[in-house]
Amino acid sequence: MNQPVSGKTIGRLSLYRRVLYGLLAEGERNIFSHQLAVLVGGTAAQVRRDMMAVGYTGSPTRGYDVQDLTDSIGRFLDSPQGQRVALVGVGNLGRALLAYFSGRRPKLAIEAAFDTDPAKFGRVIHGCRCHPMEDLSSLVKESGITVGIITVPADQAQAVADKLCQAGVLGLLNFAPMRLWTPSVVYVEDIDMTMSLEKVAFFARQRANEKGGV
Amino acid sequence: MNQPVSGKTIGRLSLYRRVLYGLLAEGERNIFSHQLAVLVGGTAAQVRRDMMAVGYTGSPTRGYDVQDLTDSIGRFLDSPQGQRVALVGVGNLGRALLAYFSGRRPKLAIEAAFDTDPAKFGRVIHGCRCHPMEDLSSLVKESGITVGIITVPADQAQAVADKLCQAGVLGLLNFAPMRLWTPSVVYVEDIDMTMSLEKVAFFARQRANEKGGV
Repeated sequence: MNQPVSGKTIGRLSLYRRVLYGLLAEGERNIFSHQLAVLVGGTAAQVRRDMMAVGYTGSPTRGYDVQDLTDSIGRFLDSPQGQRVALVGVGNLGRALLAYFSGRRPKLAIEAAFDTDPAKFGRVIHGCRCHPMEDLSSLVKESGITVGIITVPADQAQAVADKLCQAGVLGLLNFAPMRLWTPSVVYVEDIDMTMSLEKVAFFARQRANEKGGV
Repeated sequence: MNQPVSGKTIGRLSLYRRVLYGLLAEGERNIFSHQLAVLVGGTAAQVRRDMMAVGYTGSPTRGYDVQDLTDSIGRFLDSPQGQRVALVGVGNLGRALLAYFSGRRPKLAIEAAFDTDPAKFGRVIHGCRCHPMEDLSSLVKESGITVGIITVPADQAQAVADKLCQAGVLGLLNFAPMRLWTPSVVYVEDIDMTMSLEKVAFFARQRANEKGGV
C-alpha cells in the first residue's frame, strides 16, 4: 500500500469505480477482470494489477464482488473525512463546473467559489457560495481546503495559483491555457481544452487525407 | 513531413503556438529554444526536435524568428481551408465551451450546435446556432464538419458518437464520463473532468500526509 502509485493508475481506478457504480445501479453482483477490462478499454492483466494496488483480490470462480470492489477503490481513492475543494473564477466555465461537480462526489465537494466580480459575492451558484478573492486565503485555511480548481483567464491564473498555494492547497486542477509555476510539493493537473481540440482536429484531418487514398 | 507524429508532439506544438502568440503580442521578435523550453516547461532539445517535425530551423545566433515559427506551426497544425466543428449537448458545459471556443481559432470554428430541447432550436448561443438532433446527420454532411465535441450526459454519449461517426466525423472530443466505441479510423480524445479532479485530490492528500511527516 505504501508503494508509489502513478497518475495513470489513479486515473484508471477512478474510471473503474465509475463503471462499477453503473453496474451496481443495474444490479450486477459479480464481474470478472476480463469483463471489467472490456468496459474500460483495457486488458484483464492491467485490471488485476490495478486491483492488487488497491489490495483487493477476486475469486477465481465468481470474479470480483462489485460492491466490495467499489468500496475498496473508494477507501483507496477517497479521504475518510472527505476533501474540500475551492473553485476560482466563476465565469461561464466556472459555473458549468460548479453544476457538473455538484453532488457528484460527496467526499470531494466544492466548498467555496471565488471571483473578483462584486455582483457575484454572496450568491449561491449550483449549491456553492461565491466569495470575494480577498477572502480566499483566510477561507481556504479555515475550511481546510486542499484542492483548487482554476477557471480564470490565462493572464490571472498564475496569481491565483500563487494565492492558493500560499494558503496551503496541495493540488490544482488548472483549466487556464498556460503552464503554472508552483512549489514542487503541489500536484498540478492541466485540462487544456484548446490543445485537446487542436489535437482532435489535426488527427481528423490526417485521417481524412488517408481515407482520400493519398 | 510524412513521418507519423504523436499526439504528444501535436499537443506541444499547440502549446508552443499559444506561447508564441503571447510573445508576438508583447512585441518579441526572436526566441531561443532554451527560452521557449522554459516557457512551456520542457527542454531545449525537445523544442528543437519538435520544430524539426514542423520543418523549421532557427538561426544559431538569433534563435527562432517568432513570427515565422508561429506561421510554420500554423501551417503544420491547421487545415489551410479551416475545419468545421459541431458541438452536441447545449447544457451548462456545452454553453461554456461555445463561449470558450468562440473566436479563439478562426480555422477551427464551431459551426453548429445540437440539442434535443426544442426551446433551444434556432437560438444563437455565443455566436453558434443550435439545431435539433434530427438535423445532425444532414447538417454535418452538408457543412463538411469533420470534428465533433460531445457534451451530453454519459447515457446519451454513445448514441451521439454513433451519429457523428456515421455522418462522417473523423475526430471526437468527448467530455462525457465514459469510454466511447468508435470505428478505428476515428480519433477520440477524452476530457474526463471527474477523473482529473479525483487524481488531483488523491495526490494532494498523499502530499499532505508526506508533509505531516508520517
